[in-house]
Amino acid sequence: MARTVKEDEYIQKRNEILDATRQLIYSKGYEQMTIQDILAELQISKGAFYHYFGSKQAVLEALIERLQEERDQVISPLVQDPQLSAQKKLQGIFEALAQWKTAQKSFLLAIWRALYSDDNALFRQKWHTAAFKQVPPMLATVIRQGIQEGTFTATYPEQSGEVIFALMLTLAETQGSLLLSYVHKADEGLLSHVEQTIAAYTEAIERTLGAARGSFQLVDPQTLREWFTYSGHNV
Amino acid sequence: MARTVKEDEYIQKRNEILDATRQLIYSKGYEQMTIQDILAELQISKGAFYHYFGSKQAVLEALIERLQEERDQVISPLVQDPQLSAQKKLQGIFEALAQWKTAQKSFLLAIWRALYSDDNALFRQKWHTAAFKQVPPMLATVIRQGIQEGTFTATYPEQSGEVIFALMLTLAETQGSLLLSYVHKADEGLLSHVEQTIAAYTEAIERTLGAARGSFQLVDPQTLREWFTYSGHNV
Repeated sequence: MARTVKEDEYIQKRNEILDATRQLIYSKGYEQMTIQDILAELQISKGAFYHYFGSKQAVLEALIERLQEERDQVISPLVQDPQLSAQKKLQGIFEALAQWKTAQKSFLLAIWRALYSDDNALFRQKWHTAAFKQVPPMLATVIRQGIQEGTFTATYPEQSGEVIFALMLTLAETQGSLLLSYVHKADEGLLSHVEQTIAAYTEAIERTLGAARGSFQLVDPQTLREWFTYSGHNV
Repeated sequence: MARTVKEDEYIQKRNEILDATRQLIYSKGYEQMTIQDILAELQISKGAFYHYFGSKQAVLEALIERLQEERDQVISPLVQDPQLSAQKKLQGIFEALAQWKTAQKSFLLAIWRALYSDDNALFRQKWHTAAFKQVPPMLATVIRQGIQEGTFTATYPEQSGEVIFALMLTLAETQGSLLLSYVHKADEGLLSHVEQTIAAYTEAIERTLGAARGSFQLVDPQTLREWFTYSGHNV
């Protein structure tokens, strides 16, 4: 059944609040941001705000939910593709996530320092907790397929989804904080440190799965170099 | 140069506050405990307390710092022992950390719920950041030794220290949150879930290092059962 005009309006207004909140979290930090800031930004009344969200915490949770949905829409089609081998699915997931991040590169670079600041610790923790509920089961599906296909040998596919995701997440965090410490365009020492870190995590993921060496490329070297070249200008 | 009497007194008084806080966290819980409780316990004035700590959160952070120092004192002698093989050193580290945790089980159980609350997101992030600076270099030393001895085959010993620690930390976090959700003494389903999780992380660590299967026991099954039996009473 088609959505009514009223429903469409409701969703649109709710999304406007989420967009404004996202900007405010990045510019002020979650703890510092007040509902008053959101009202001022959108020029709406307190009553209008509470029509959509019960609390500041509720906006945060909705925002995280929307970001997670975006990410799942990137991963899900790959997991369900009946044509792809498990190895290709997992490689596809690594690439799709990197592309998703690269597509919002200038935005991410602009907000990264805020994301890694003390003020956003709770935001990041909630993001991790939610991600740990959603992503590992999808990875487990792929790992089970790989075991059936004989390319993976992990003994506990269910839990390995969690292990692999822990490695992906820690690598992303490490890259993020290294990116923040990267200020000079010609800092080749740090770039090679990042490359070795990625190589170590790639090896850990391949070995955990029992996949052949060289099965996966977690980060395309050209993309990495680009990220670390641009950051000097923008962060 | 020797410390002055004044310095010694300062350190002693500060430690007294930390000890009392630890006891209070155990008896009341971190959230319930007030600075007033600390003052009453030690029979000191508000001014005396603020001479040593700026806030309740600051005492908790200092307490955790002391815990990190204790942890390093547990790991360090093993890393430096000239008699032990790398495999024995790493197994020793896993056991020593488990024993250290078990020795302060009641304290940890009391503090755990506070640790996993939203209010302590920043604190936990700081704990992780500090631990990530301290532990991986020690692990890297052991991994390099294992490569020389021919029992490990990791390609990037330096970065593997970080990877292994990421796995240890995520496992500890997962166990912690599972422990919090464990309310019924007879919840065997959850216990077996925890056992499989530990087995998966053990496999990941062994494979990442390139160590033989069965090289390591991350958690002794008897200890685990004890933890999950006691938690129902104390948390």
